[in-house]
Amino acid sequence: MPAFAKRMLQVRRSFIREILKVTADPSIISFAGGLPKPDLFPTGPMAEAAASVLAESGPAALQYSVTEGEPALRQWIARRYREKKGLDIDWQHILITNGSQQSLDLLGKVFLDPGDVVAVEMPGYIGAIQAFSVFEPTFAGVPLLPHGPDIEALTAALSRKKAKVFYAVPNFQNPSGLTYDLAARQAVAKALDAADAILVEDDPYGELRFSGESLPMVSSFMQGNAYMLGTFSKIAAPGLRLGWVVADEAALPKLVTAKQASDLHCSTLVQRILARYLATNDLDAHIAIIRGVYKAQRDIMLERIRAEFPPEVACTEPEGGMFLWITLPEGCSAFALFDLCIREKVAFVPGEPFFVDGSGQRTMRLNFSNADPEHIVEGIARMAKAIKVLLAKPTCVAA
Amino acid sequence: MPAFAKRMLQVRRSFIREILKVTADPSIISFAGGLPKPDLFPTGPMAEAAASVLAESGPAALQYSVTEGEPALRQWIARRYREKKGLDIDWQHILITNGSQQSLDLLGKVFLDPGDVVAVEMPGYIGAIQAFSVFEPTFAGVPLLPHGPDIEALTAALSRKKAKVFYAVPNFQNPSGLTYDLAARQAVAKALDAADAILVEDDPYGELRFSGESLPMVSSFMQGNAYMLGTFSKIAAPGLRLGWVVADEAALPKLVTAKQASDLHCSTLVQRILARYLATNDLDAHIAIIRGVYKAQRDIMLERIRAEFPPEVACTEPEGGMFLWITLPEGCSAFALFDLCIREKVAFVPGEPFFVDGSGQRTMRLNFSNADPEHIVEGIARMAKAIKVLLAKPTCVAA
Repeated sequence: MPAFAKRMLQVRRSFIREILKVTADPSIISFAGGLPKPDLFPTGPMAEAAASVLAESGPAALQYSVTEGEPALRQWIARRYREKKGLDIDWQHILITNGSQQSLDLLGKVFLDPGDVVAVEMPGYIGAIQAFSVFEPTFAGVPLLPHGPDIEALTAALSRKKAKVFYAVPNFQNPSGLTYDLAARQAVAKALDAADAILVEDDPYGELRFSGESLPMVSSFMQGNAYMLGTFSKIAAPGLRLGWVVADEAALPKLVTAKQASDLHCSTLVQRILARYLATNDLDAHIAIIRGVYKAQRDIMLERIRAEFPPEVACTEPEGGMFLWITLPEGCSAFALFDLCIREKVAFVPGEPFFVDGSGQRTMRLNFSNADPEHIVEGIARMAKAIKVLLAKPTCVAA
Repeated sequence: MPAFAKRMLQVRRSFIREILKVTADPSIISFAGGLPKPDLFPTGPMAEAAASVLAESGPAALQYSVTEGEPALRQWIARRYREKKGLDIDWQHILITNGSQQSLDLLGKVFLDPGDVVAVEMPGYIGAIQAFSVFEPTFAGVPLLPHGPDIEALTAALSRKKAKVFYAVPNFQNPSGLTYDLAARQAVAKALDAADAILVEDDPYGELRFSGESLPMVSSFMQGNAYMLGTFSKIAAPGLRLGWVVADEAALPKLVTAKQASDLHCSTLVQRILARYLATNDLDAHIAIIRGVYKAQRDIMLERIRAEFPPEVACTEPEGGMFLWITLPEGCSAFALFDLCIREKVAFVPGEPFFVDGSGQRTMRLNFSNADPEHIVEGIARMAKAIKVLLAKPTCVAA
């Protein structure tokens, strides 16, 4: 049999997807996934939108269309940047993609040669690391501190390692739930501009803010080389598989060519259904409902963690998003805890795979968006029991 | 600004898409596109399928799903291979993609290192050349003769140039409309097996046969290393963006990983709508309607070409598909004819871009699937006028 391409040696299957298989057992309470809550999807309005689109312009909705994406959808996105962020973006600079994952694939295709250095947050989003890995870069980890990335480490990655790209999730990051503060945003932009490096700013969770003020995009502080990624997965529905990337005049044609070579264009039908849904529904009212439910679930999870976990176990308190990040005491293994938790019928994602330098052994991610309050209460109680067993062991690493 | 990746130097934007821009003028009769006829799309049944899916399982249809694709859709495809081709394919060896274009992208990702040699038909499908170009291969052209590829040239590409992959469209090929006969299919399989090379067998048009007998897949004669690509674009609707690739046990996990890195999975919603449509409608009856309409349009186009074009202009007579292939007399330029035709308000695609060796100057592709009979009659008359002007010139190349 002919050999596989060398690039495939670097690309691992998603570790999280493998964990999700373990948690398919319905008796397990799982905080491992990263799914939005499906009861909140706008099923009825989407059905109405689908019916209208197919009744009014069915043949066009089922035909091939342009690579860049449906103009109505791109115009909606540009308007929203203006209204929510005060950013003036030409809608023609927006390329519709099959979700942020494809935006990352296209940016990798267009910008990354083998050996190029990509700086990523530690912990960082595994899907991005997987998407970029296909193009055989080297990764430089930049530790994520409570208020943003370690600027010294970022500067070192840019200067000493000549990092070409920094991939950042500044709002309610996956996996940590952390958010960059204003000073961090300005400092990141300054460091990237000084190095003529590229920012890939991914913002899947920005609209899911429960409290505090929305902060400007890091991209808005940059002189250029900034690519803003967005998705409808967390504010409408992930099963549509629709997102976008905003690019400048020089890069946009390259991204369009890469998209054309990848799959011609996104589904005309699903783009038109979404555009119709957005034109005939109040998305802000819908997002307010999501925010309310997720906030309530975060509150319960945090409250139960504080009540039941030993005080030496630390937990972030994110102002939005879908995840909490937990750090066990020095020397403890989250993988060992995972094994104990599976025996107790509760699951989470150990943090180590989110660290490109192989650290993070005592960290873990908990999802609160796709869990009912009663399961949160029971699941945290089960975890607390397992944590106490772990901490009672002499080394707290034995499984 | 940071440099683009080297791979982007090789990838050209689709020449056909550029031509389609010229033909946007509604006074131009265009045979340039490659579109199915939109009046034939099953708009009503798709609307019913969408309504049922969203009413019965809306939240699941809007949620993330597995990378491999919806089981119901994969099982339908496996059943159809059994019924139509007598092939026994495990549905779990089928990966759902965003159309054949993405199948090509994923195969390129998984198999092609820079400098690997890909053998392609001459003329060959431009979309495949574009998809593979991203992975920086070298192309070896294999001339397409009336009954199949030039086996000597294929053997030479495999032995002397060490071609790793042969990309083939054995039924009603795009752009030529040609079909491999049985002996050619067996000879291609034998040559590839002997060289331990990979066959990528793309079959978008196989179901659009107007006359004659359906022939076995080339893949069915191979010992292994065969990848069969299919699409719903020509038998249901291209705006769904759904196709598939059949792979063996060794390659499937690699393709799934590549798909996951590319865009996680295809739209859950559109996969479920299509699966429901297929479960509740008679696709064969629908395809019979498409065949009837396309055959009538092919017949009119061929009849008018024979009546009006000078006898020294040759034309293929395909038994199916969507395209005719025309060859002008020695020394003539199809690009020169294109300019003359645009003045007469009629368009086609010059053949040269379909040849990886830069030949094919006197060839051209005409589409008959997306043209009404009256436009075919008028368009061929306009082309005949332009051809006579071209042939009257001393060199028949001046524009």
